[in-house]
Amino acid sequence: MPEGGDAITSHARTAVVVNRVCIMLQEITHNKLNLAVPSQDMRFKRRLLLVLIVVIVVIWLTSLGRRGTIDLPEALSPELEITALKQNLAKLSSECRSSRPSRFDPDLPVIYAITPTYARPVQKAELTRLSHTLMLVPNLHWIIIEDAEDPSPLVANLLKNSGIRYTHLTAATPKEWKLKEKESNWKKPRGVLQRNTALQWIRNNLKVDVHRGVIYFADDDNSYSLEVFDEMRDTQMVSVWPVGLAGGLMVEMPVLDPKTGRVKGWNSAWQPQRPFPLDMAGFAINVSHFLKHPEAKFSFNVARGYQESEILRHLTTPDQLEPKADNCTKVYVWHTRTEAPKLQSEKDLNKKGLKSNAGMEV
Amino acid sequence: MPEGGDAITSHARTAVVVNRVCIMLQEITHNKLNLAVPSQDMRFKRRLLLVLIVVIVVIWLTSLGRRGTIDLPEALSPELEITALKQNLAKLSSECRSSRPSRFDPDLPVIYAITPTYARPVQKAELTRLSHTLMLVPNLHWIIIEDAEDPSPLVANLLKNSGIRYTHLTAATPKEWKLKEKESNWKKPRGVLQRNTALQWIRNNLKVDVHRGVIYFADDDNSYSLEVFDEMRDTQMVSVWPVGLAGGLMVEMPVLDPKTGRVKGWNSAWQPQRPFPLDMAGFAINVSHFLKHPEAKFSFNVARGYQESEILRHLTTPDQLEPKADNCTKVYVWHTRTEAPKLQSEKDLNKKGLKSNAGMEV
Repeated sequence: MPEGGDAITSHARTAVVVNRVCIMLQEITHNKLNLAVPSQDMRFKRRLLLVLIVVIVVIWLTSLGRRGTIDLPEALSPELEITALKQNLAKLSSECRSSRPSRFDPDLPVIYAITPTYARPVQKAELTRLSHTLMLVPNLHWIIIEDAEDPSPLVANLLKNSGIRYTHLTAATPKEWKLKEKESNWKKPRGVLQRNTALQWIRNNLKVDVHRGVIYFADDDNSYSLEVFDEMRDTQMVSVWPVGLAGGLMVEMPVLDPKTGRVKGWNSAWQPQRPFPLDMAGFAINVSHFLKHPEAKFSFNVARGYQESEILRHLTTPDQLEPKADNCTKVYVWHTRTEAPKLQSEKDLNKKGLKSNAGMEV
Repeated sequence: MPEGGDAITSHARTAVVVNRVCIMLQEITHNKLNLAVPSQDMRFKRRLLLVLIVVIVVIWLTSLGRRGTIDLPEALSPELEITALKQNLAKLSSECRSSRPSRFDPDLPVIYAITPTYARPVQKAELTRLSHTLMLVPNLHWIIIEDAEDPSPLVANLLKNSGIRYTHLTAATPKEWKLKEKESNWKKPRGVLQRNTALQWIRNNLKVDVHRGVIYFADDDNSYSLEVFDEMRDTQMVSVWPVGLAGGLMVEMPVLDPKTGRVKGWNSAWQPQRPFPLDMAGFAINVSHFLKHPEAKFSFNVARGYQESEILRHLTTPDQLEPKADNCTKVYVWHTRTEAPKLQSEKDLNKKGLKSNAGMEV
């Protein structure tokens, strides 16, 4: 930076330039007001001004281009580092918003993905990879319901950081319906209260024939292709499709009548006598259709494996079902289960009053 | 928009305003040049100009504020503020990335993610959800090596449809090194030949000081946050970080010297005497550094749990390791395992010469 006398000269020079530009602008605008034919001199000044504007725009655009690279200098004072980081944040933030295609397309129906979840060692891992799938789905509204009295920071932060549109709810399962330790996970119905809480939120917040969309029950341990979301999006009442690795089979699925293309049966091996012998991941419900049937919900008082049939019996009949996934010839979702990790060393530590993850969110 | 006569009036009004501001600027700059004592009128005009500039700046700042809400904690120490800002940057950068899947930026080092895989019921489910994570990571080159004689259509199509830059290799494990049915999965080293095949591809196709990037071993059953990729990208030699749910602990990780910030030990409970007692998901290697050490690879001839130490002993020493993930205080990757699905009904079908998934890829 120029100092002392140099500074004055520099200021004076800037002032001269500003002054000249102003005279030009003044003359041009006067000329415009008077609507006179521009003189030769005037045309030259106009061109000069145009060149000046172009130069300024080019300098500005060049500076915009540089905003993408984020290089942090090393060994800065905390104050300088904070300033640099803040600048980077602001840059990235505007870059990000400007480049992001709108996730919400008003022409597409919204998918309301309902995910019941509960605290366990693999919870964050599972929700993280599910969030990556959902981040790639346009017009998705994620409704997460924790089996807890209060929302956890783990789930709250994960949702906030995902960039996905979401609703974070809680519904603690009553003690008498909770699984005891080492009790097989099919002994008691799971997620009933949580899914019903999400359905009630939909009844309270969405309106028939106003909110176009579908409801899908997306458990946090299953694996989903992106195609399954494309397929379900135009569901008119209730749609169905094959589910991989479900019910003891490589694929459990509706069987179609080759003439009518409608569901004529099921290939299920497990409890095939159920009215709707399918998996929770194998169907979607149109929002308006759901709202017109206030009795449709899950129940603690049905036999094992009958939750899907319980809600669907209020909404459809087997012959009304809409087959998706290329007429039920493709597997676009898998009923996967994640192992509970073996944490023997952690338990040994805990006995000594220690934790491997003290102060860390895993 | 005003039309016809209105348009002219509007233009004329704009011209008048520009003209007046110019007269003011001109007077002010003239005044500056002449270094005269400013008149009352001049001072008023200067103030007016100042107010104008302030208003413009306020409007601009307000518009910046609207571009995105980034919640920063209040009244933090500089260190905490730096951490918070860094988190926001990482968050935003991954958020930013999510809107542009699979893009290649010439300024960013490439992450070569090496994934050994083998045919099994959950293979497509696992590769599908891993592909969704990798689709959200910029500058990623996915090297998949099938434990098979020939590439399978399942993996080939999945790679092709993902939009991720990839290399598809095969390397069939010799019969004597294959796990027998029901043999515990730790009885024989797994993925040795496949990972070495990928490393050889890197040696054959990349050049020291030409290809900027890092090598990461991304097994197909683990769970990865997007942050872990951001963290590893600037690895100079070998970087390390915590891994959740590994080695019988909630988190297995390097322990840092609080003064030097270097790795001084490990919290591992399982075989802590290993030179590098860490998980395959817990480190990354700089490509140029790797290429300079042709002896670095995996081996069938080391004890269980020593594969990581086997490759790393050629590349680094514990005190040279670069700690990542906020000085090893964050868990950005989890050693998850997917249950082998129970397929009893499928086996019953097979005995009758039937398949639930005849002609379908699951």
